[in-house]
Amino acid sequence: MTYCLALKVREGLVMLSDTRTNAGVDNISRFKKMFLWRTPGERAIAICTAGNLGITQGVITRLQTAIDKAKGSKKVESLLTCSTIYRAAELVGEAMASMQARDRDRIEAQGAAADASIIVAGQRKGGKPRLFMIYSAGNFIEATDDTPYFQIGEHKYGKPILDRVIKPTTPLDEALKAALVSMDSTLRSNLSVGMPLDLAVIPADAYGEAHTRRFEADDPVFRHISEHWAAALRDAFHSLPDVPWTTGSASTAP
Amino acid sequence: MTYCLALKVREGLVMLSDTRTNAGVDNISRFKKMFLWRTPGERAIAICTAGNLGITQGVITRLQTAIDKAKGSKKVESLLTCSTIYRAAELVGEAMASMQARDRDRIEAQGAAADASIIVAGQRKGGKPRLFMIYSAGNFIEATDDTPYFQIGEHKYGKPILDRVIKPTTPLDEALKAALVSMDSTLRSNLSVGMPLDLAVIPADAYGEAHTRRFEADDPVFRHISEHWAAALRDAFHSLPDVPWTTGSASTAP
Repeated sequence: MTYCLALKVREGLVMLSDTRTNAGVDNISRFKKMFLWRTPGERAIAICTAGNLGITQGVITRLQTAIDKAKGSKKVESLLTCSTIYRAAELVGEAMASMQARDRDRIEAQGAAADASIIVAGQRKGGKPRLFMIYSAGNFIEATDDTPYFQIGEHKYGKPILDRVIKPTTPLDEALKAALVSMDSTLRSNLSVGMPLDLAVIPADAYGEAHTRRFEADDPVFRHISEHWAAALRDAFHSLPDVPWTTGSASTAP
Repeated sequence: MTYCLALKVREGLVMLSDTRTNAGVDNISRFKKMFLWRTPGERAIAICTAGNLGITQGVITRLQTAIDKAKGSKKVESLLTCSTIYRAAELVGEAMASMQARDRDRIEAQGAAADASIIVAGQRKGGKPRLFMIYSAGNFIEATDDTPYFQIGEHKYGKPILDRVIKPTTPLDEALKAALVSMDSTLRSNLSVGMPLDLAVIPADAYGEAHTRRFEADDPVFRHISEHWAAALRDAFHSLPDVPWTTGSASTAP
């Protein structure tokens, strides 16, 4: 499994992914699932992936090949040369559809799952920060002010905190903390999600500026956030008012 | 879907369930999923169910029929007359296996799921509080000090808080609060879990004493807990230390 999430707030985009893949609990590996491309002064695009690793690696390879070819030929369209981030999402969707067409039937014939999902976040000069989620079929949806975040993979454990704190007006610093706390809750509850973590932050209207960071298992910053959150949650829990339960009458049912 | 959970701490047992069932998002109903039987001075047993409603209602009917028959005949074994709570879990498992044998093939032939799971919590005079989870096959496991809680149904959203605060030494009052907070997180993140809620509390060594309470949608106690928790979580979140993210260098990948 995997857990990746991306948040879109007015101040920019935050993307965080784990690095664990597994084919059963006895076959756990570490693979990078986050990729970032930039043209300084013009655009930054970050992608994270979940699902069948052969499919998603094939998608990334196709996207990278197009980027490499586009350097030598203006006829080739790539994530760094396409007209909009919406078009970039289309290119990712096309690569996904192409990989699914090549491999899906044979994967499923083996009883395995070919499903995959990809989050695309980016901004180009002249456009706004945009955030898309691409499905296995290559179709996609875009985050809006009502739902300013996407999650892929093992998303349930880390959803409650996002539902509570993420709004379009959330400062970028807080969006980053929410992403780390959401990941921390998932790491604690599900073995199929694991350190290290990859972070990408794309500030709004910085056109090509992007910040990446890897949090290794012993990263002091992540550990500090994790420990502080655990203590703050315990304090929050212990501050809850008492619930009277002896008032209910015992009954025999049904 | 459904969300039910039960906690076993030294001071007793807490069980909480929602009441929503759904066959698709356009077919949502309200069914009680928690059942409590008592013999004052001797035992209390609480059960909550998840999964195929026809299966679980059949299980409850079989258990209730045996209880009714046992009043007239000492030869009939029931939840209220069996020798131990372990034996009660076996009786539930046998009823589950019987219902699965009757209906499973025909349910699956229609493309529907026959899976179900049941939590059994109780204590009899002479025994300790015990907590079991019964699977579709009728087999079951028991909660231990290492894992003093069980969840069935839509369990992921509400798991992180349990992992953080529930230990065997957690006071009964706090176990109840943790159950309510776990349910609150699930209600907020998943439409298939809904109010009202049914609560049962079986204090340790009270032999047949049990407290039940229904929390309706506008219940002031639950709303107070929910609002207090939301505010405390926000405070906890805002107390987190800042995470430096501009230190990472931007890179082109993969």
